[in-house]
Amino acid sequence: MSPPREAVPGSFDVESLLRAELPPAAVRWTGFPEFNLVGGHNDAASVPVDGLIEAATSVLQREGPTLSTYGLASGPLGYLPLREFIVRKLERDAGIRCTPDEVLITSGSLQGLDLVNDVFLAPGDTVVVEDMNYAGSLSRLKRCGANIVGVPLDAGGMRMDALDAALADLARRGIRPKFIYTIPTVQNPTATVMSMERRVRLLELAERYGTAIFEDECYADLTWDGARPPALRGMAGGDRVVHIGSFSKTIAPALRIGYLVASWPLMSHILALKTDGGTGALDQMVLAEYCATHFDSHVMALRATLRRKVEVLMAAVRDSFGASATFSDPTGGIFLWIALPKPVDTTRLAQVALQAGVAINPGAEWMTDGATGRSWFRVCFAHPDEATMRNGVARLAEVCRREFGVPAVAGGTHR
Amino acid sequence: MSPPREAVPGSFDVESLLRAELPPAAVRWTGFPEFNLVGGHNDAASVPVDGLIEAATSVLQREGPTLSTYGLASGPLGYLPLREFIVRKLERDAGIRCTPDEVLITSGSLQGLDLVNDVFLAPGDTVVVEDMNYAGSLSRLKRCGANIVGVPLDAGGMRMDALDAALADLARRGIRPKFIYTIPTVQNPTATVMSMERRVRLLELAERYGTAIFEDECYADLTWDGARPPALRGMAGGDRVVHIGSFSKTIAPALRIGYLVASWPLMSHILALKTDGGTGALDQMVLAEYCATHFDSHVMALRATLRRKVEVLMAAVRDSFGASATFSDPTGGIFLWIALPKPVDTTRLAQVALQAGVAINPGAEWMTDGATGRSWFRVCFAHPDEATMRNGVARLAEVCRREFGVPAVAGGTHR
Repeated sequence: MSPPREAVPGSFDVESLLRAELPPAAVRWTGFPEFNLVGGHNDAASVPVDGLIEAATSVLQREGPTLSTYGLASGPLGYLPLREFIVRKLERDAGIRCTPDEVLITSGSLQGLDLVNDVFLAPGDTVVVEDMNYAGSLSRLKRCGANIVGVPLDAGGMRMDALDAALADLARRGIRPKFIYTIPTVQNPTATVMSMERRVRLLELAERYGTAIFEDECYADLTWDGARPPALRGMAGGDRVVHIGSFSKTIAPALRIGYLVASWPLMSHILALKTDGGTGALDQMVLAEYCATHFDSHVMALRATLRRKVEVLMAAVRDSFGASATFSDPTGGIFLWIALPKPVDTTRLAQVALQAGVAINPGAEWMTDGATGRSWFRVCFAHPDEATMRNGVARLAEVCRREFGVPAVAGGTHR
Repeated sequence: MSPPREAVPGSFDVESLLRAELPPAAVRWTGFPEFNLVGGHNDAASVPVDGLIEAATSVLQREGPTLSTYGLASGPLGYLPLREFIVRKLERDAGIRCTPDEVLITSGSLQGLDLVNDVFLAPGDTVVVEDMNYAGSLSRLKRCGANIVGVPLDAGGMRMDALDAALADLARRGIRPKFIYTIPTVQNPTATVMSMERRVRLLELAERYGTAIFEDECYADLTWDGARPPALRGMAGGDRVVHIGSFSKTIAPALRIGYLVASWPLMSHILALKTDGGTGALDQMVLAEYCATHFDSHVMALRATLRRKVEVLMAAVRDSFGASATFSDPTGGIFLWIALPKPVDTTRLAQVALQAGVAINPGAEWMTDGATGRSWFRVCFAHPDEATMRNGVARLAEVCRREFGVPAVAGGTHR
């Protein structure tokens, strides 16, 4: 065979060399929309800038030369003072008793999701999840080729009768799920908190059916009163539960710092999959230095700010959508999860609204059953200021009314 | 079928749920060895601590609140001032002309390796690489299921006669490799620099055989005199060459900041695979702020330090191993690549030496053909201080003599 010379010398078609089944190509970023109600951005005014500067100065003065080594002087699990802070915090706030060797610092909890999926899942494996769920978790599970079984929630979190039925059905078909993935405390997107009774029952069911639990507590620090039930990881022994958390929602999302808690037998396998040369050092060091003395007071103030902002958002939605929009007052977190009447397709609404400068997250991406999710959408109230929420929601309602006849009358007059 | 109840209630065997073909589990980290001559750690005294503190303070004062958004105010490609610095630097130093939209900030160049492999490679695909190579690149390619074709190097870098023969052989068998992976400037581990004549020839061969080039220039800033040939990316148009680089070797490895240069058609596919929520913000911001005014003077001083240290290491190897060890004076970088006589198996030597407190990188992991690599090893001279190098190499020679009879007489007496 002669070499496959290119038709036009000097031209080069890179597409023909790429692998099959790539995700859709990214589009060029052109800045945030005027009314940015998507994603998990946080309150700009709450970033503790002075505290972070002070922390950066003191930790670099004390330990700056350790930047010369991968892993600092702490080894591959991450910066030791940060792991020690997490150990203390999880024992006090979540009832988890662990050692620093059972805590892995991850580059955001997204890396925690990737690592746990990678250690458990091969294509065709089954996982059980809450049927309204974080889009990034669902897309990752799909990318792993997992068979995703959705379990409905109500105001008390994942419904245990439905979970029992789903596990029994799988068992009848000879299928043992790899894990039950749950966001028990301030669930995304529903902002529900799983009751203690259901936590006990969930552990019983996991034991009965021989499966693991993957607990994601990214938002658990952000209940309005600061109270949270014990984590499932704290209620179970051994490696029944692998637990992840994050500082994205409590300090700042651009700091890519999350953590993963597992006993050493599982951790030793997970750590072997973390081949990134470590998580960003300054993010780790500055966060540890800041949190050791400021975490509690910062989060207490942030909770109050977020509560004020969600009240503005709920009022704005009631003003602009009236009875057309239904939602529950969230228990905490940064999101409001809103249902519109069935005729509204929020995927189309999101596209049309974006043309008008309003970005929302359509529900189809936030549910295991996209068809059921098509009339829901999610709004983040942490990032936009109060005027942006009011004006953005009003404009969204206008677009929705033009496109779907919902709400039937213009904002403000239908109450 | 009844549910698969566990034999012992309360016990839980997580191993039975893990996927097949996991890499070997990690072992617990117990601190660095006494004589740490492995890896890519850098000179602790050269970390510009004061400059980093100053940079952290000024950039956080100016832009701290942007930490509240994923991607800062710069979008998914990374912090814009850092991308702008890289654009200026690559044009001046490497002859690469690109825009900030053609630069992606990565979490170390390791993430660059992962992204490029991921966009091109499916199991069974073929890649062509220098036969002495970075272990982390080889292990990643193996993990992708790639068929790896090694091409020998000499003092002028990858041998083009051998590359031509390898590509012709593949073409005869109907195989079009996805890319040619090369570290042209201060190659790892050989520290060779590919000549200009060979760079021209490499581009011709890639065009002739219709394949891409993956250029890794992590060490290119660290030639002793600061001179470097133009990058392949600068010599070719379009997407023939995808280029990666890093700040790990010039500023600090614990800062996990690398970059990837590609034209937008390829970049749009690569960016869709970067689903990590962004690279660590403080690492990016502080680095950009520091480098804008200090990069050149810092790297000039670092080069002089590294040159002094490699001279200490070369003298130590000559003193302790005499004629038994052969190596070339490196053109730059942080590694010395050393051959011992054939009877020495450096994989075994590394194990025995570690018991004696000396860590080295055995050559078998640094070659496509592990059998040929078995008598080579790699030493990092950037991190250990001068006494550690002298005493560590002396102890290594003692261990090697006890184990393999090489060198034949004790250190220092055979010159």
